[in-house]
Parts: sequence; structure tokens; C-alpha cells
Amino acid sequence: MSNIQGKSVVFIGAGGLAWSLSVALHAAGIRVIQIVSPNILNGQALAKKMGATHATSFKDIAHADFYFLALPDRVIESVAKSISFPPNAFVIHSSGSVYLNSLSALFPNAGVLYPLQTFTRGRVVSLDNVPIFVEAATEQSLSIITTLASTITTNVIAINSEQRRNIHLAGVIANNFTNYLLELGDEWMEANGFSLHLLQPLMAETVKKAFEVSPSLSQTGPASRLDTSVVETHLKMLANLPELQKLYGVFSDSIIAKTKLRNYNDTKK
Amino acid sequence: MSNIQGKSVVFIGAGGLAWSLSVALHAAGIRVIQIVSPNILNGQALAKKMGATHATSFKDIAHADFYFLALPDRVIESVAKSISFPPNAFVIHSSGSVYLNSLSALFPNAGVLYPLQTFTRGRVVSLDNVPIFVEAATEQSLSIITTLASTITTNVIAINSEQRRNIHLAGVIANNFTNYLLELGDEWMEANGFSLHLLQPLMAETVKKAFEVSPSLSQTGPASRLDTSVVETHLKMLANLPELQKLYGVFSDSIIAKTKLRNYNDTKK
Repeated sequence: MSNIQGKSVVFIGAGGLAWSLSVALHAAGIRVIQIVSPNILNGQALAKKMGATHATSFKDIAHADFYFLALPDRVIESVAKSISFPPNAFVIHSSGSVYLNSLSALFPNAGVLYPLQTFTRGRVVSLDNVPIFVEAATEQSLSIITTLASTITTNVIAINSEQRRNIHLAGVIANNFTNYLLELGDEWMEANGFSLHLLQPLMAETVKKAFEVSPSLSQTGPASRLDTSVVETHLKMLANLPELQKLYGVFSDSIIAKTKLRNYNDTKK
Repeated sequence: MSNIQGKSVVFIGAGGLAWSLSVALHAAGIRVIQIVSPNILNGQALAKKMGATHATSFKDIAHADFYFLALPDRVIESVAKSISFPPNAFVIHSSGSVYLNSLSALFPNAGVLYPLQTFTRGRVVSLDNVPIFVEAATEQSLSIITTLASTITTNVIAINSEQRRNIHLAGVIANNFTNYLLELGDEWMEANGFSLHLLQPLMAETVKKAFEVSPSLSQTGPASRLDTSVVETHLKMLANLPELQKLYGVFSDSIIAKTKLRNYNDTKK
């Protein structure tokens, strides 16, 4: 596959991943020719955006160079088994935690193209600098999927399924838990008559500093100062939000323990 | 104080807050005339940057319009008591959790100017859009400190000490805990041979989406999908990092409980 431009892609699924990935591939000169989704509203909307056709049934699947299974992890394998793909179809999933062999056992040309990013339906995210992890069972397939991924990001990395699962876990922690902290923070701010948006410049700087300086050198706050009286006061203030109170306690205990260990190690140097 | 430009400021302390605040005030046309800090290296470096003098002793304090106690919370009151300020000195602290009356009981002109931001020594952060919360005991003092804060940010908000403590707690949660997640994430990535920097585009989008869409509508991941088999797998994968494993468990339990409650409430609508 010397020239990837002009190749055709079918998306099975029309969620957040399908939206961002199809927009990126389209911009790179790949033809998104069909969206297959039982959800008529989402499927038609994405198909319209791509100038593609929309099918609700797997029976009506078009002939294409690539098939993206843009589906929840737990249905990827069963949907792959239920579709009659053309012979030699190149079938790809984009999951962080599903093993390659769930597809490579079914198709000679199978691969994984996993962008380390969070997707929400209707929200198109640029993939320009997003790490995309690729995997395939044969050298030829890996070369093709690497070329494909290289059209949409500057950062393509070949890894195996185990490594991808480790990366996925880091992504869950960084993304899901930070977002959850902001959700609970939102409740706290609202309960006190303030908008979450007051925290926006702080969060922007927190993330910027962690990556520029390193998170271990960026830690501030009462727990890292071993200021247990402020920690105790904060725990009491959170009495009406028990979920946030519990997380506050676990975080503070952990930060205090780590700080004490660091101080102890520093005295031994 | 009809014209704030050209007024003079003394900083007591030369840490991260003093650096960013003095740079911002200087840029706004306020004269930073002296840095008082027993730490010769930090105090001299900041004084040089400001074209100010440096004093190591509180006895040598200069005459100025404003005095900033840029100090750790627990020493603000005792240091304020130990300094012979000129009569009618306007004395200000920048702490999120110290009550105004720890200064206003000592000085007729006292105030709080609290920027909701994280500061690290040697790293100057722009305050242009950072919310700055102000407080003072008299209307006249509040007017003056509002004018002063307005020279360095577009977002000045007058609140009382209790409200400020609530905002400070939200800041600790958003900043300290997110940074700590990244610190533990860094350890996990390193243990698996990857760089934390692979998570940078994901974290940037996570924070952007939470503020643009709302965190409760942005939540993704296995816990919010009630995919307990992936949660169990992740907990096993983290066996060698018990602190991260514990946080993973508490977060996932909490997200699962919140999701179930939301689903239950949705069925009642």
C-alpha cells in the first residue's frame, strides 16, 4: 500500500471516537465512505459530515480498504464475528484494553490503532499531537497501519497488547479520576455559591507545571507541608459531601506518607 | 488613593507567591521597593529582578504604601506581630485559609489579596485572568485593595474569610490531588518503560472538556460504564503500587456508586 491517500474506510460505530477519527482521516485525504450504526441520528449525522452513506445493518456493509470497529470494548469481538467482511479486509479496533488476537484470530489483516485521548460524541478533538499506539500481527500489516496512523498524528508508537493495557490504565487514572475530582469540586463550589470556572486558571497551571517541572517537584498544599491541622479542618468542612471527604482523606494520608518517606530519604543522603 | 500607579510595596517573603505577585505588580506600575527575607539567595535574586533592595532582618523594613506578608499560613500572624510597621501601614496577606482578623486585629489598614493559583519558587505565573479574592475590614480598605488587585487581573472578587476558606479547599482538591495523580501516574509509566509526557494531550483535553462541557457530562472510563471486570483487572495490575491501587479502588467505587444513583434517578424521570 504505497499510497495511503484515497484509500477508503468504513466506520462501525458513530460515537465520540468515530467522530474525531473520521474527521482526522478525512482531512488527511482518506475517504470515509460509510458509517454503520444502528443509531440513526448519530449515524446519519456523522455520514452527512463525511459525505458518506449510512447503514443501520451489518448486512449492508460496503467494500473498503479499512474497517474501524469504533465500539465499546466488550462488544468488539462479538460484532467482529457477526459481520461478513470482504476477504482480506483490514479490520481495526481502537480500544486500549482489548487484545489484538481478538481480531487477528479472525482476520489475516487485523490491527489496533489506539489514540491516547478522551472522546465524547459530537465533540471533535484534534489528533495532531496525540500519541497513537499501533499493533498488528504481521510486519506488513504493522507497516500499513503505521502509515495510516502517520497521516493523522506526528506521534505513532508500535507496542504490544500488554503495553497498551498499561498505557490505557495510566490514561484512565489521569483522565477519569481528574475529571471526577472536578465533578466533586463542582458540587462543592455550587454548594458554596461559586462557579467551578473559578478553578480554570488553577487547573491549567497545575497540568502545565506538572509536565514542565515534574509532578513530584510541583506538589504544594497542606498535606505536602505536613500541616495536619489544615487537613483536619478541611475534612470537617466536607462533612456534607461524604464522597469528597473520603477522597480528601485518602489523598491526604497518601501525600503525607510520601512526603515523610521523601524527607526520611533526604536525611540519609 | 486615587492613583495606585507609583505606589510602593514591600514583600516579606521571597517564595513562589512573592515572585509572581511582585512581577505582576511591577508590570502594572507599582514600585516593588524592598524584599525582606532571611533567605539571602532567594531574597537577593527577587530584589535584583525588581530593582529593589534586600533586607534579611525585619528591623530594616522600609517605608511603603503596602506590605505583603507572602509567608506560609502558620507564621503569618506571628510575623505580623513581630514587625514594627509604620503607623497606618496597609498590611496584606495572600493566604486562602488565614482569617482577615489575624491582621485586622493588629492594623487599622489590613486586607487579604488571595490569587487562586499555584506558585513555585522561580516560576513566574501570569495572573492576568486568575481570580483574585479580596477582603478588608473597612469599606475604604476594601476599595483600595480592590483597586490594587485590579491592576494585575481582570477578575477581582470580594468575599469574606469563610467563603475564601471554601474556595481554598476547592483549590487544594483540584490542584494538589490532580498533581498527586500525575505523580503516581508518573511512577506507573516509568515502571512500564514509558514517559509521563505521553499523557500530556489527554490531560489537556480532560481539563478543557470538563470546563467546556461540564465534568459530569465528560466522565468516561470503565467505572462510569459499570464495567467491573476491567476495574478488577486494573486493580490487579496495580499490585506493585499500593498507593495508586488504593486510590484506584476508592475512585472506582465512588464513580460506580454515583453512576448507579444517576441511572436510578434517570429511570424515575
